[in-house]
Amino acid sequence: MATIKDVAKEAGVSIATASRVINNSPNTSQAALDAVQQAMTKLGYRPNANARALVNKTTNAIGVLVNDASAPFFGTMIKAIDTIASEQEKQLLIGSGYHDPDKERNAINLLINSRCDSLVIHSKGLADQELVAFAKEIPGLVIINRVVPDIANRCVALDNYRGSYMATEHLIRSGHRHIGYLCSSHNIDDAHDRKRGYLDALATHGIEYRDEYIEYGEPDEMGGEQCMVNLLAKNTPITAVAAYNDYMAAGCLALLQENGYQIPDDLSVIGFDDGHIARFIYPRLTTVRYPIQVMANEAVKLSIKLANEADHKPDEHKLFMPILVRRASVARPK
Amino acid sequence: MATIKDVAKEAGVSIATASRVINNSPNTSQAALDAVQQAMTKLGYRPNANARALVNKTTNAIGVLVNDASAPFFGTMIKAIDTIASEQEKQLLIGSGYHDPDKERNAINLLINSRCDSLVIHSKGLADQELVAFAKEIPGLVIINRVVPDIANRCVALDNYRGSYMATEHLIRSGHRHIGYLCSSHNIDDAHDRKRGYLDALATHGIEYRDEYIEYGEPDEMGGEQCMVNLLAKNTPITAVAAYNDYMAAGCLALLQENGYQIPDDLSVIGFDDGHIARFIYPRLTTVRYPIQVMANEAVKLSIKLANEADHKPDEHKLFMPILVRRASVARPK
Repeated sequence: MATIKDVAKEAGVSIATASRVINNSPNTSQAALDAVQQAMTKLGYRPNANARALVNKTTNAIGVLVNDASAPFFGTMIKAIDTIASEQEKQLLIGSGYHDPDKERNAINLLINSRCDSLVIHSKGLADQELVAFAKEIPGLVIINRVVPDIANRCVALDNYRGSYMATEHLIRSGHRHIGYLCSSHNIDDAHDRKRGYLDALATHGIEYRDEYIEYGEPDEMGGEQCMVNLLAKNTPITAVAAYNDYMAAGCLALLQENGYQIPDDLSVIGFDDGHIARFIYPRLTTVRYPIQVMANEAVKLSIKLANEADHKPDEHKLFMPILVRRASVARPK
Repeated sequence: MATIKDVAKEAGVSIATASRVINNSPNTSQAALDAVQQAMTKLGYRPNANARALVNKTTNAIGVLVNDASAPFFGTMIKAIDTIASEQEKQLLIGSGYHDPDKERNAINLLINSRCDSLVIHSKGLADQELVAFAKEIPGLVIINRVVPDIANRCVALDNYRGSYMATEHLIRSGHRHIGYLCSSHNIDDAHDRKRGYLDALATHGIEYRDEYIEYGEPDEMGGEQCMVNLLAKNTPITAVAAYNDYMAAGCLALLQENGYQIPDDLSVIGFDDGHIARFIYPRLTTVRYPIQVMANEAVKLSIKLANEADHKPDEHKLFMPILVRRASVARPK
């Protein structure tokens, strides 16, 4: 492989001059620039990203921590960040934390040790204070889908409570009084906030809450299916179900239909996220839109700005708002 | 931020000794090791991954090129690679190529310039010869989901032809003679191979092929829906449909059900991939399993082995075989 020495020799310039051209330094003549670039092309010289990173103290990579890269929600988030990253010729370093404190800490440390100066972090396992400490160390660290009070202006989050409140209220306004809830069994804010939204919507509309209407499961299709099996077994008079997310709603729908239920005539179902799946299950899912693309976009732009401008002071933190997306899985009760 | 000089001073050793400890060199005393590690912890010193990469000529990252990180198929592939990577404390660098030659070339170059010595490449846009050239430059480069003849022993691929043949034959054995095909409009081998499998299965069973039974669309739910709209409009006597992948099958199913079709009684549908979605749409999708997790696993292990062992000669290339997964979307025609 060609070295910078070979390039300098081929171009007939000093190594220092070749280095200035390769590192885009301002003080280079056009002649030197042309000569060095021709030599680089001729010799197939690849500027060493690690060497440049040492000089610049950063890499050309943006670090991203997700829960699980195979979940479509995080796939959408990764793609949104990648779109901005590739506009800037930066690449993504991906870590997975699986909502586990040790795995999250380890992944963030690996990203920092790889000298990512922009970091978009989706953390549910670490305590606020630990995230604050990471944020102090890395000016370009931004938190997505969580509000950490001490660094709230570096958090890009959604009002989960409001989304779940809206979904439940939509069922109530459609005439339902007996409404089941498929809750995530993960001990994270999202699960608590969304359950609280469901409970408060019932309370506001004077509907008594019944413990037996709530089931807990993994926030995926299998979990939704299992929750619905349990709800059906209890033989309650529910006419509608709100789910923690679209995957749980999809699992619940498939099970109900296999058991002869006509949706939405026999039972209404509402999801949360408006992911890929919501538009293409039958009946098409009425749900609440989680604008993860817009939010991921905002997070990575903020992260790059914070990394590049030492004195950038972001505005007060802005909570994103979910919106109701009406499709075909909710109707009035019979 | 603490430097290696600070660590050496704190530990009471020379910089060279501190460096040997930090870089896990063999010739260090236990006393020096303990002193340096204590100093690192006390000062919060982070060994610079870029500096180590310069010394070692590689990074701790594995490069992956996907088509589109937001497609669940690639999410599953990324997760499978990440599982192996994190066992080895390596991180992923992700590039997206979108089946476009320029984007693929650019992404691979960025990965190489970032000194990834292991690369798992999903490329559909670049010509064989260009991939062979990249493979010559990077010994740890492995191709997934494509066979490049000159480097076939570094390719991990699926027999797409066979999978589609099996799916079509399953419909024929269930009694269908008029079988539609929803084909991907992308000009890639996968699309050609799967279409050929469909056509050959018909021919083997003495069923005449009809051009009007084939529709082309984007390989996603929207594309499947659009293809099915066109097939229905032509008012053909088809009783079954084979789809390029599960997403097209899902879009087709939702549309049919909205139009009052009972699946599988009125029309049978078979997919391809056995992705996440196949188990949780209604009716649960009969499909052909694409073992992407196993294949991604194999690809990244081969890639690491090739990068670490200069003289490793992989066996002859092995084609992975799809298998039929029977669920509830195929029945005998009425």
